[in-house]
Amino acid sequence: VAEAIETMVVRGAPAIACAAAFGLAIDAHNASDLGVWRAYSQRFFQAIERMARTRPTAVNLFNALDRFGAVASSFKDDVPMANVAARIEGDAIALYDQDLAICKAIGEHGAALAFDKPVRVLTHCNTGSLATAGYGTALGIIRSLHAQKMLAHVYADETRPYLQGARLTAYELMSENIPVTLNVDSAAAYLMKNGEVDWVVVGADRVAANGDTANKIGTYSLAVNARHHGIPFYVAVPTSTFDTKIATGDQIHVEMRPSTEITHQFGKPVAPIGVNVVNPSFDVTPHDLISAIVTEKGVIYPPYKKSIAQLFSSQV
Amino acid sequence: VAEAIETMVVRGAPAIACAAAFGLAIDAHNASDLGVWRAYSQRFFQAIERMARTRPTAVNLFNALDRFGAVASSFKDDVPMANVAARIEGDAIALYDQDLAICKAIGEHGAALAFDKPVRVLTHCNTGSLATAGYGTALGIIRSLHAQKMLAHVYADETRPYLQGARLTAYELMSENIPVTLNVDSAAAYLMKNGEVDWVVVGADRVAANGDTANKIGTYSLAVNARHHGIPFYVAVPTSTFDTKIATGDQIHVEMRPSTEITHQFGKPVAPIGVNVVNPSFDVTPHDLISAIVTEKGVIYPPYKKSIAQLFSSQV
Repeated sequence: VAEAIETMVVRGAPAIACAAAFGLAIDAHNASDLGVWRAYSQRFFQAIERMARTRPTAVNLFNALDRFGAVASSFKDDVPMANVAARIEGDAIALYDQDLAICKAIGEHGAALAFDKPVRVLTHCNTGSLATAGYGTALGIIRSLHAQKMLAHVYADETRPYLQGARLTAYELMSENIPVTLNVDSAAAYLMKNGEVDWVVVGADRVAANGDTANKIGTYSLAVNARHHGIPFYVAVPTSTFDTKIATGDQIHVEMRPSTEITHQFGKPVAPIGVNVVNPSFDVTPHDLISAIVTEKGVIYPPYKKSIAQLFSSQV
Repeated sequence: VAEAIETMVVRGAPAIACAAAFGLAIDAHNASDLGVWRAYSQRFFQAIERMARTRPTAVNLFNALDRFGAVASSFKDDVPMANVAARIEGDAIALYDQDLAICKAIGEHGAALAFDKPVRVLTHCNTGSLATAGYGTALGIIRSLHAQKMLAHVYADETRPYLQGARLTAYELMSENIPVTLNVDSAAAYLMKNGEVDWVVVGADRVAANGDTANKIGTYSLAVNARHHGIPFYVAVPTSTFDTKIATGDQIHVEMRPSTEITHQFGKPVAPIGVNVVNPSFDVTPHDLISAIVTEKGVIYPPYKKSIAQLFSSQV
C-alpha cells in the first residue's frame, strides 16, 4: 500500500489517508498469528512510520496516522490480536465513511455559493471520487452544483505533468454526464480573459493556520490569474486538511517529483536526455488570493487566521 | 512546403515566412519549362494563396507573401522563367539573410537591458534558430546575454501541448552549453514566487498597433504572473511581426489546433475518447502587461501606440 501511494497508484490527499488506514488494517490482520498486541506493537508503529515516508505534502495522511498512533498507544499488552485487527479495521472504515460524508457536506456548502445563475467552473488536478473516499472535494462542489442545475460548464486543466485532469477529472465528469471541456493548464488565463470562467474551484493538500494553501503545481498560477480577472477563487477541503500547527505556507514542505514525469511520455523521451528539470509537485497559494475556503462545517472567509481559529475552537 | 507549415514540421513565425519564400522559389524553378512569366503567373499567385492558407496567426508570413506578390505584379509577361525563378530565389535568400541579421540585432538590443548583474530568464515556446532563419528572437537575446556573460540561468517552459520548450528550446540551449532548466508551464509562477526569475522574455506571432501581442498559448498567463511578481516582461520581435493595420489585439485571429495535440501522446490516448477540448494555439497579451518590446531597430517602451508609430514613421 505504501508503494502504491509513493508511485501515485493512489493519489489525492483524502484517498491517500484512507488507503494508508486500510494498509494498517491489512497489516494488523496479517499479524493475527502473533497472538497478542505485545508481540505486534513494534511492527505496527513501523508500519505507521513506513506510511509517513510515502509522500510529504498532504497533511490528511499525517492526521490519520497520528490518530492510529494514539489508538495503538492505548492498547494494553495482552489484548488479543483479533481485537486489535478489528479495531484498526473499524477505524479505517470509519475514516472512509467520514470522508465520504465530509465530501458531500463540502459539495452542499460550496454549491450554495451559486445563488443567481448557473456557473462555469474551472478546476485543476483531480479532486473527485478517485482522490477521496468518494464524491470529491472541489469535484464534490461541481457534482452538487450539477445536481441543483446550477452548473453551466466545467473547464478541466489537463494538469501537467501527471495529467490528472485529462486522465481522471475529464473521465469522472463524462461518466456523470457533466459538461466538461479539457484545456492545457496555460490556457486557463485565456479562458478567463475571454469571459468563459465564473469560478475557479480547487482542492488542497495542506492549509496553514493563516489560510496559505498547498495544492497541485499550477494552482498558484490560477489564483494569480483569477485575481487579475476578478474571478472568485475557492478552495474545497475537509477540516482534516488544515494544519494549524504551522503558521504560514512557508513551512509547508513541497515535494519534488522525478524529472521523467516531464521528460518522458509512455517511456519515450520528449526532451533532450540529461536535461535539468525542476518538477515541484505542489505550490503554495497565499491566503490573500483565496476568496473563500469551503469545508464540511461551512464556508469560511478572510481574515483566515481568525476564521480558521474559530473553525477549530468550535469543534467539540 | 505548405503542408510542412500546416503540420508544424516548420514552425515559428520567422521560420514560417522563410520556408514559404523558399517554397515559392522552388515552385518557380519547377516551372522553368513554361518558358515565360505569362504562362506561369496564375500558378504563382495560386502558390501564394496556398501558402496564405497554412496558418493564420503569424503576420510575418503574410508580410512576406505580400512582398512576393508585389514583385510578381511587376514582372512583364514575356520575362523568361529563368529570370523569374532567379529573382524569386534571390528574394527568398535575401529574406533569410535579413532575418538572421535582424535576430542578431534583437539579441544585442535585448542583452543591453541587463546592465548590473547576470539575469535569470524564463522563456516560453521556441524562438531560436529552429523558429527563425537562425540565432532567434527571444532566444537571440538569451544567446547575446550568454555571450556577454550576463546570463545566470534559463528556465524553459515545456510549452504544452506541442512541447516546443522541451523538444526545441532545451535542445538548442544544451547544444550551446547555456545553463537551462525545464519546467511545466504552470510552475513558472512557482519559480517567480521563489525569486528564481529576473526576466520573462518571449517572442511573438503578431503585434498590433497598440502593442497587444499574440504569442504561443500560455504567454498571457506568464505576463499576468510577471506583473503580479514585479518581474519585467519583454517581447522580442522583428519589425515584420508588427501588424499596424490592426488597432488592437482583439482583431487577431487565434488559431484553434486539433484536440489530439492534448488528448494523445505518441498516438496513445491520455484523456477519455471523445472528450471536448479547447486548444487555442495562441493567446493575446494586452500591451499594458508588456514592459518593453525589443526589435532589430532598438527597444521600445509604453505608450506603445506612440512608440510603434514612431518605429514605422522613422523607416526609410
